[in-house]
Amino acid sequence: MLLTPIGHVSSPVTSLGEAALQGCEGAPVCWLVIDEPFVDGARDLSVGDEVFVLTWLHLARRDVLRLHPRGNPASPLTGVFSTRSPDRPNPIGLHRVTVSEVHIDPDGARLRVRDLEAVDGTPVIDVKPLLPGGR
Amino acid sequence: MLLTPIGHVSSPVTSLGEAALQGCEGAPVCWLVIDEPFVDGARDLSVGDEVFVLTWLHLARRDVLRLHPRGNPASPLTGVFSTRSPDRPNPIGLHRVTVSEVHIDPDGARLRVRDLEAVDGTPVIDVKPLLPGGR
Repeated sequence: MLLTPIGHVSSPVTSLGEAALQGCEGAPVCWLVIDEPFVDGARDLSVGDEVFVLTWLHLARRDVLRLHPRGNPASPLTGVFSTRSPDRPNPIGLHRVTVSEVHIDPDGARLRVRDLEAVDGTPVIDVKPLLPGGR
Repeated sequence: MLLTPIGHVSSPVTSLGEAALQGCEGAPVCWLVIDEPFVDGARDLSVGDEVFVLTWLHLARRDVLRLHPRGNPASPLTGVFSTRSPDRPNPIGLHRVTVSEVHIDPDGARLRVRDLEAVDGTPVIDVKPLLPGGR
């Protein structure tokens, strides 16, 4: 169960302190850079597509099972599988975003997206279209 | 980027041929079995919770970048990141399900869910609550 990065996030956000807690809370526009070996998989992505992006939150802790949601000590300690904390046994980020630009060339693809809360350099591991009903 | 299974799917579906193509297309009721080391992370899950379950689709191929969606040769060849095919560079399944029973005991947790299309024994790697708006 070894993940292969398919690319990375290129973002003006370079530290966890700057990252929005969730994508809808003011994350900047950023780019998904898809590496050359995977570019054929990205050729049918189009402007306006709503997709789930899966990332590997490489700065997260993996030994956390209970936490105070959103880092607020007044929140009750909560099991991590009832939170969206990046700190979790498998720190996979799930981001629902809209594609606003697509550039494909032989050495890679670049997808401009809004509302993706991840720091610059975060590995991208998958892109999936939404199913009907937002699933 | 090494994934740790947190548990597995227990399902009457034992082969790919039986699995529904998508969860909304007649997948049977099945169970998520959460292993003992991760049970504290599951303690706040409740009946009625809508969650995303992430699985590792261990029977999938990882060398597929373009395919005919839903295995239909009449469908145009499509980049894998515009499909929900299990065959993809990182074969992570994303399943939006509703929890219908929760059993927690010291040696693990069992969550009954509807609409999860995965064969018996599929590793579970994460459970995340939906955010407002189904994100």
